[in-house]
Amino acid sequence: MTFSIIEFFLGRPLPNREARSQTLGVFAGVPAMGLDALGSASYGPEAALTILAAASTAGLGQIGTITLVITVLLAILFLSYWQTIAAYPNNGGSYIVARENLGANFGLLAAAALMVDYLLNVAVGISAGVGALTSAVPILHPYTLWMCLAILALITTVNLRGTRESGLVWALPTYGFVIGLGAILALGLYKAVAAGGRPEAVIAPPQLQPATETLTLWLILRAFASGCTAMTGVEAVSNGVSAFREPRVRHAHATLAAIVAILALLLFGIAHVARAYGIMAMDQTRGDYQSVSSQLVYAVYGSGWLYYAVIACVLAVLCLSANTSFVDFPRLCHLVAQDAYLPRPFAVPGRRLVYSVGILFLAFGSGSLLIVFDGITDRLIPLFAVGAFLAFTLSQSGMAMHWWRAEGRQSAEGLLTWLRRPATMKLAINGIGAVATASALAIILLAKFIEGAWITVLVIPATILLLRSFRRYYDEIDRQTLKASDRPINLSGRQPPVILVPIKRWDRLARKAVEYAMRITPDVRALHYMALEGPDAEDPQLALRHNWRELVEIPAARAGYAPPRLSCITAEFRSLTGPLLRCIEDTRRQHPHRPIEVVVPELVEGRWWGYIMHTHRERRLRARLLRYGGRSLAVTSIPWQLREAEPAEVILAEESSNASSGGNSSGLCRHSAENY
Amino acid sequence: MTFSIIEFFLGRPLPNREARSQTLGVFAGVPAMGLDALGSASYGPEAALTILAAASTAGLGQIGTITLVITVLLAILFLSYWQTIAAYPNNGGSYIVARENLGANFGLLAAAALMVDYLLNVAVGISAGVGALTSAVPILHPYTLWMCLAILALITTVNLRGTRESGLVWALPTYGFVIGLGAILALGLYKAVAAGGRPEAVIAPPQLQPATETLTLWLILRAFASGCTAMTGVEAVSNGVSAFREPRVRHAHATLAAIVAILALLLFGIAHVARAYGIMAMDQTRGDYQSVSSQLVYAVYGSGWLYYAVIACVLAVLCLSANTSFVDFPRLCHLVAQDAYLPRPFAVPGRRLVYSVGILFLAFGSGSLLIVFDGITDRLIPLFAVGAFLAFTLSQSGMAMHWWRAEGRQSAEGLLTWLRRPATMKLAINGIGAVATASALAIILLAKFIEGAWITVLVIPATILLLRSFRRYYDEIDRQTLKASDRPINLSGRQPPVILVPIKRWDRLARKAVEYAMRITPDVRALHYMALEGPDAEDPQLALRHNWRELVEIPAARAGYAPPRLSCITAEFRSLTGPLLRCIEDTRRQHPHRPIEVVVPELVEGRWWGYIMHTHRERRLRARLLRYGGRSLAVTSIPWQLREAEPAEVILAEESSNASSGGNSSGLCRHSAENY
Repeated sequence: MTFSIIEFFLGRPLPNREARSQTLGVFAGVPAMGLDALGSASYGPEAALTILAAASTAGLGQIGTITLVITVLLAILFLSYWQTIAAYPNNGGSYIVARENLGANFGLLAAAALMVDYLLNVAVGISAGVGALTSAVPILHPYTLWMCLAILALITTVNLRGTRESGLVWALPTYGFVIGLGAILALGLYKAVAAGGRPEAVIAPPQLQPATETLTLWLILRAFASGCTAMTGVEAVSNGVSAFREPRVRHAHATLAAIVAILALLLFGIAHVARAYGIMAMDQTRGDYQSVSSQLVYAVYGSGWLYYAVIACVLAVLCLSANTSFVDFPRLCHLVAQDAYLPRPFAVPGRRLVYSVGILFLAFGSGSLLIVFDGITDRLIPLFAVGAFLAFTLSQSGMAMHWWRAEGRQSAEGLLTWLRRPATMKLAINGIGAVATASALAIILLAKFIEGAWITVLVIPATILLLRSFRRYYDEIDRQTLKASDRPINLSGRQPPVILVPIKRWDRLARKAVEYAMRITPDVRALHYMALEGPDAEDPQLALRHNWRELVEIPAARAGYAPPRLSCITAEFRSLTGPLLRCIEDTRRQHPHRPIEVVVPELVEGRWWGYIMHTHRERRLRARLLRYGGRSLAVTSIPWQLREAEPAEVILAEESSNASSGGNSSGLCRHSAENY
Repeated sequence: MTFSIIEFFLGRPLPNREARSQTLGVFAGVPAMGLDALGSASYGPEAALTILAAASTAGLGQIGTITLVITVLLAILFLSYWQTIAAYPNNGGSYIVARENLGANFGLLAAAALMVDYLLNVAVGISAGVGALTSAVPILHPYTLWMCLAILALITTVNLRGTRESGLVWALPTYGFVIGLGAILALGLYKAVAAGGRPEAVIAPPQLQPATETLTLWLILRAFASGCTAMTGVEAVSNGVSAFREPRVRHAHATLAAIVAILALLLFGIAHVARAYGIMAMDQTRGDYQSVSSQLVYAVYGSGWLYYAVIACVLAVLCLSANTSFVDFPRLCHLVAQDAYLPRPFAVPGRRLVYSVGILFLAFGSGSLLIVFDGITDRLIPLFAVGAFLAFTLSQSGMAMHWWRAEGRQSAEGLLTWLRRPATMKLAINGIGAVATASALAIILLAKFIEGAWITVLVIPATILLLRSFRRYYDEIDRQTLKASDRPINLSGRQPPVILVPIKRWDRLARKAVEYAMRITPDVRALHYMALEGPDAEDPQLALRHNWRELVEIPAARAGYAPPRLSCITAEFRSLTGPLLRCIEDTRRQHPHRPIEVVVPELVEGRWWGYIMHTHRERRLRARLLRYGGRSLAVTSIPWQLREAEPAEVILAEESSNASSGGNSSGLCRHSAENY
């Protein structure tokens, strides 16, 4: 029953061989990888204009320049990541590039920066979208947090099902946003050109406020720092190359080009139309606040169904830009976990071949952020771009180092030859990228440090420490379990183990366990614990002793075996563990060179509600024996299934129903390649 | 760390031998067993007066008569339960008495009635107390539900620690309530006598409302039905005889006498003082509502610190009357579970020798009632007394049957001799009790049916069906596991099992498991599953095959053993279970008469945070193998503890720190009485 609920939400389990069919082309790749980058177009220019508003008309005049610089930076990033994708066709995220070229520590720095950024991106994206929705429809305002969490749950479920579905789900709003906003901007540019640069607005934007600051370089730099948020998310494609259909690199290149081109066009269009129509960002605390995109559509087109369609797409894209994190975060965690810097479960694909643990961790982490900040984003945004630009910088530096090393080997050549070689060009591109993103990072840190970037500056090193402690843990395990593992196995002293069988009463479970134990060893000792159910409970001790004599000892003696002994022991604390451990110590002293095996008869209930019907003593006992019983102890469960007619067929049927094609899941043990 | 948190809240685990020291005397018994009964004094008379208010002064005149009838009924119940306690010194609750004398079905009827009543009693008591508090301090009103739940959590914790502590915790408010209200009533009676029956009120109660109904017998009967709620809780002592110190019966008798005497005096006093001062119940929806007890204190004593002290005690007693249910409900469930009509966990005492599962069930059940009804009690109260009076009736009928049977054996005697024998007197008392409580039950059902008693009438049979289905489940288990268990054990065919060892990579865990398997049987087969971690993960197959040849096969062949085989198998669904079950089926076909054992090497992490570091494949594998592997399969865990220096001493130390006295917990296996 529960099983089919999971199946309903997540779909059937996928076999490994279906992994390839799960991948993306360009059309589905743009929404899956580019939502974050494209969504930035709706808040990047607005963030820059918010700063420039202090200088009024003089400020608005600079938006073109700033957008130009941002577009140039974007072009540099585009070239850099183009090279990265070609050089690392197997997931060339910042983590891999930094780790390979700058060393493990820089890799961890990039990983920590990206993790923090992805977590923030989900919370910021969803709450910004919901915030925009609630300012458009104020009646929804009291439900802000609930709507955030509902959207988060929806995105999580879709991603747990796998990337292909999510690509298609997101395609509609993404392409709607691009086409709708693009059409508005094209119309605006046409009108502006037709009117000789001074077009008439259909619905006029509000009057510009008078300047409160003079236009200084510092103001422009701060506006640039804020505007840089328009570039977040560009790295997504290079992180997810392995999610593309073959030929991977070509599809990834095409997707990256499409995303960057669309983004650049949108940024350029917004800047020019805004300047032409005199549109400026407004103070978000004002009652009549309107976003820049809303003002744009009003000015160019006026109100009407297209207005609502474009605004709806803006909202959807903002909310869904969180999805980019859901594609990349689990994949990043998978890579980091494969290097043992994160717990093992992050590395293992779930039933749908996605890294479910990473997805759930991201959902819970960003859900907690949403709850803690009550769905209000203003305090989160200053923390936000630091991680992305830190990762950009590390990735570019890593690529530069990559080309430098490729060069280094042939350094005997002359300078001119060196300059003419193609790798030099690549080194130059990535070097310029590194310097540019590092400068942007420095400006962002300076401009936003007090507003909250300092939190990121604290959290990233803390994350690195945590990652390194995970690695230490696994190194310690390897040290212990691999130590001297190259010695041949020890075949001396092949005496069978001494077996202890705790039994409750004489029934078929007990008989089965004793029979099993007597197959393995002549040294079987049964233990009956009294007073397990408290001081008042009746104990079947007498009947048990009688049965033991009649049904075990006498038949065993007749058949010529040493009769197994039965001891009755009081369990003062109503727990088997303590007294049983004492008996194990005792037995170990008597037989120091033989292993000890505890054989536990166990009733197995298959129906879920059967769980409440039992005390689960055996399960707790097993766990504690494995924990405290020492290394020469083995614990064996002898099951007694309550419902006999439930054999392996259940699982076989379950799997073969999935294996529609290919006979390799029918037939027992057929996989076994060779019996080596 | 977690361990000590539990210890902080619940105290150290108690050994069985401390069970006796955990029991009650009279002084602690009155609050522990009597809070419910005594608390009734504050709402029973008020409930009767609420009905009588319709007839104004004429109604008020009848309160004396009604209280007299209730007191007579109380006296009958007192005598009946006195006899029950003597006849059933080992928990003579309605369940036991009805089961023993009227048969299992009537026992279940009584049990179901009591369970429903206890659950309601907790919710009603707490919410009534909090309701009274919030009408005294209106500022607390928005937090009603939270206060209810906080009080519930407190009561639950105290009861999970054990009865003795709770007796002392509750003693202060109980005795404060009795002494405070008693003093007020004594003062009131004295003033009334001194003033010749017409005393002057210090603060006059509100004017009586004009009559809206004439005083009919039906009105008086309805008032009586409502007033009967004053008697709920009287059965508590007979349910909990085993909680008393030895001599149990004497302590129980004294406690019952004290409770009934105090209750009767309070009821008598309230009725007389109310009539003398002209105090009538007020409509609870009126803004100037005052409870009867509040009016009483105002009239006799006026405002002042004593007023607040008495009202505070009333509040505390109302809230804490829930505690009676916490004492009795788990004990009742324990008895029912011992008869296999409830899941086994209800029968087992927890670390503090209380029935923790019953306590937690009661807490969650009544917590849900509180949440569903938002802490508002009005709709719950009509459901309330039905269960109690049904249980009263069944208990009395059962006792009457008990004496009747005791008589029956000597029925050859003459009628006169029969009448003169002491058991006849007892039969008469319980018979009168049965008739009286049955009549009260009929009146209550009639008067309250539409208001909500019908819900109880539906829930009780549903509960009985549930209890019987639990019993059927356990009967089925016994049928399966005891079938043919009186046959001697089978010692033929003592071939050792075939052993399968799933291994991940070649390390000390794998080596230990293979060495262990080779001790037991010559037929060992190792299985390596590929692609467990998804299609992209690297697999150590080649290294493993090399190691297997060098470290296992060659040494085994040299030592003259059949070398164990290694098979590599693809796990398409990234799960061991399916392929392993297929291999088990395969092996079973090859060796149909030999058991199969799966030996699983398992890394054991003792630190709680270590849990997240592992994928717990082995644990899931074991559970599914036990479930689906069939009855000839055994599953053995070979532990590898990550922290070596953590042997049995942990548990031994833990227990011996508790065993302050008596040497019977030190020394290994010393308990083993005889090695039979």
